[in-house]
Amino acid sequence: MATRKSVSSQRITLDYNNCLAEAVGKEHGLRPTELDRIERLTPKIAEKLATQRKNGKLPYRDLPYQDDMVASVLASARAKQGQFDNVVVLGIGGSALGTIAVHTACAHPFYNLLADKDRKGPRLFVMDNVDAAQFGALADMLDFRRTLFITISKSGSTAETMTQFLICRQKQIDTLGQKKHAENMIVITDREKGYLRPIAQQEGYETFPVPDGVGGRFSVFSAVGLLPLALTGVDIKNLLAGAALMDGSCKEPRLRRNPAFMSAAIQILFYNRKKPMSVMMPYSQALRDVADWYRQLWAESLGKVRKAGSREENVGPTPIKALGVTDQHSQVQLYREGPNDKIFTLLGVENFGRELPIPEAFEDVAGVGYLGGHTMNELMEAERRATAYALVKSQRPNVTISLPAVNEFTVGQLLYMMEVQTSFAGELMKINAYDQPGVEEGKVATYALMGRKGFAEAKKEIKALKSSKKFII
Amino acid sequence: MATRKSVSSQRITLDYNNCLAEAVGKEHGLRPTELDRIERLTPKIAEKLATQRKNGKLPYRDLPYQDDMVASVLASARAKQGQFDNVVVLGIGGSALGTIAVHTACAHPFYNLLADKDRKGPRLFVMDNVDAAQFGALADMLDFRRTLFITISKSGSTAETMTQFLICRQKQIDTLGQKKHAENMIVITDREKGYLRPIAQQEGYETFPVPDGVGGRFSVFSAVGLLPLALTGVDIKNLLAGAALMDGSCKEPRLRRNPAFMSAAIQILFYNRKKPMSVMMPYSQALRDVADWYRQLWAESLGKVRKAGSREENVGPTPIKALGVTDQHSQVQLYREGPNDKIFTLLGVENFGRELPIPEAFEDVAGVGYLGGHTMNELMEAERRATAYALVKSQRPNVTISLPAVNEFTVGQLLYMMEVQTSFAGELMKINAYDQPGVEEGKVATYALMGRKGFAEAKKEIKALKSSKKFII
Repeated sequence: MATRKSVSSQRITLDYNNCLAEAVGKEHGLRPTELDRIERLTPKIAEKLATQRKNGKLPYRDLPYQDDMVASVLASARAKQGQFDNVVVLGIGGSALGTIAVHTACAHPFYNLLADKDRKGPRLFVMDNVDAAQFGALADMLDFRRTLFITISKSGSTAETMTQFLICRQKQIDTLGQKKHAENMIVITDREKGYLRPIAQQEGYETFPVPDGVGGRFSVFSAVGLLPLALTGVDIKNLLAGAALMDGSCKEPRLRRNPAFMSAAIQILFYNRKKPMSVMMPYSQALRDVADWYRQLWAESLGKVRKAGSREENVGPTPIKALGVTDQHSQVQLYREGPNDKIFTLLGVENFGRELPIPEAFEDVAGVGYLGGHTMNELMEAERRATAYALVKSQRPNVTISLPAVNEFTVGQLLYMMEVQTSFAGELMKINAYDQPGVEEGKVATYALMGRKGFAEAKKEIKALKSSKKFII
Repeated sequence: MATRKSVSSQRITLDYNNCLAEAVGKEHGLRPTELDRIERLTPKIAEKLATQRKNGKLPYRDLPYQDDMVASVLASARAKQGQFDNVVVLGIGGSALGTIAVHTACAHPFYNLLADKDRKGPRLFVMDNVDAAQFGALADMLDFRRTLFITISKSGSTAETMTQFLICRQKQIDTLGQKKHAENMIVITDREKGYLRPIAQQEGYETFPVPDGVGGRFSVFSAVGLLPLALTGVDIKNLLAGAALMDGSCKEPRLRRNPAFMSAAIQILFYNRKKPMSVMMPYSQALRDVADWYRQLWAESLGKVRKAGSREENVGPTPIKALGVTDQHSQVQLYREGPNDKIFTLLGVENFGRELPIPEAFEDVAGVGYLGGHTMNELMEAERRATAYALVKSQRPNVTISLPAVNEFTVGQLLYMMEVQTSFAGELMKINAYDQPGVEEGKVATYALMGRKGFAEAKKEIKALKSSKKFII
């Protein structure tokens, strides 16, 4: 058991000094009065969220405590130990991004390249696209007898995932036979509804539920994320323990004590002050895919048509993924000299788990010699601080979320914090953070073009879209 | 030799129907008069660029024709054939992004995972960060006797790259001895100047030049990109042939005939019409890293302080990377319902090199059965068209660049087009597209924090940056 002291030293923190007027000036920094205004709103919003949760309207909030679900995931993972060389997730959007984010963060940096004996589980492939070149190459490469597929779709009508499923299932049957193929397929779908549930029953697949009322982008702490993670050696109990710890902080009704609420407040205040872009810039290779997960959470939750009476307004910040230090040599020129239209969230890591000393050599060469005797870790830290400083010098507001280390416990905190931040931001913006009506039109158009029954009218409309050769070079 | 007909069928095209007022309405679409205005400016800008080129001021434009350089790169690659299992590029920003973009596009989708006999060359690792966890894991994994390092830095003072260099060189010496280690190291740096040139001479490293006057982000067609690509089985001659073909189109002084100029015009017109974000969304896994390369090119070239007399203005569009179809389940909700503040560039691929048929099954299941009999390729195509259509329906301007296939020849065209597009955009914006003064402050701060001589003052200033515990949660 972790002692109280060791838990507290593993807490992630939010440092918002650098977004205040004191740091970046009044024109681009937050004044205390702005935060005060949100602070006054906070107890009411906190109460609203707590009531929603109590009434079962925010089931994602309770995912860290589903002991039965965790037990069944772990039992399944244990039962499969040693049987598979590969786990392939067939899923897209929320069915893929959480698994990718946590696995990149917590597994070996070159996990799939490791020899079997050095890996904590089978190789992991999350296939979240329908690119025939890539998908075909994967299928060629895998031994289907030693490959477990996990098909994830709540509705069972996700065209991309069902396409992948049909292709893989056929190849499984060709390789293993109709009966035995079912042992290499797991389905995660709605508990009762949807097209995949009866298919799974008919074929005899093992299944796990996508919990009721939990949208894809809030599903990482359900079987959707936990099963592939557990199968590939991620410590899901520690992940959930981190989420639960953050849940404690997120119940706090005082803005200045609640990192999720404060982070949301900062984001939305800047959005309203004509900084429509929100850059997340992890200073850690391991955290790079967290930024992609956050991109979905933030964009799909907050990018909405807001209705106020008869008036409609298109609102929502645009999340942008960046990577430190890499993007200092790509984006920082724009971030410092371009328009001051962004709020930056840097992710810092205190302990990378190992130190890499820089050998002393070429001491007389000015541009090289000074590095010797330091460590690569010091350089990473210096660059993150240097970027924060350079942003402040050009009046660009930024905050830093610090992780004591990158592991299941800290990543669990971070993702849970981002989820609650999203709920709070939705309340501040007065929009529904949990739907995605804007995706429908594209889905219908896809169905129409693929000849799904009942979509013939839509097809006509798409074909009627004018396209003149004159405007093609 | 390719016939004229086969070349023309391998040309990439720009379709800008969907950004015109006829498609997305007058409020958000371009009117012919706007394009006419740019068209009138075009011959003058074309002439200016041609003169700059003739006077040696745009040397990147001539990179597709450096036959001697290509011959020396190919000779070096041939000489190393069979000697190495791994090529590791130590470089960041422009020293990394071009190689990554082209390799991802032209090599096998799971190149590094292939068995030696199935790969066209050694595995490729482009290390463009200073993360001790990642870098240490790589160093542990590699057999240094069978690993070739390519250190790339024009100035030889890039802190990240020189740190990597010092660490790897020491481990090479420990493994191979001082004399023999030099056989496993190549340096690409300035022809004469900088800190790396004398080091390379002293140590006896093979070297290639970063051509004079070519900035990192325009260097993909020099040895910077060509050497690692040639070593790992990419057909660099075809890459350059594609670039040369596009060069022909880019000399055209009529806006409506020149894809690079037209694309730039569209981007800058929308930027000036309050769409500060430029989304590049490839519908192809192979092209995903092209969007990262473009991010640097566009951000670092155009994100500038523009001086007009005593007035200073912060300008520049923000490039954003997205991925089709994946991001339909992540970003499209925002793209359609959020603020209409973006111009979209979709990248389409006509031929993925293989077809993946979708088996017929579950014909009676409405959400699944209609897919059978189609191909994954048709789905990808349908989704790209569906997204373009859905964007038009919500008045979001978009253009599509189509590649007949993804290979060296088409990718060469695409990258060269983007480079010329950048030059033209710089002229339209009246800024210097080739410098990056905004990066300096962060570099100085890093030097200061790492204790480089002559930067003590800067260190004091950084330490003086106020940070109150009150604003850390």
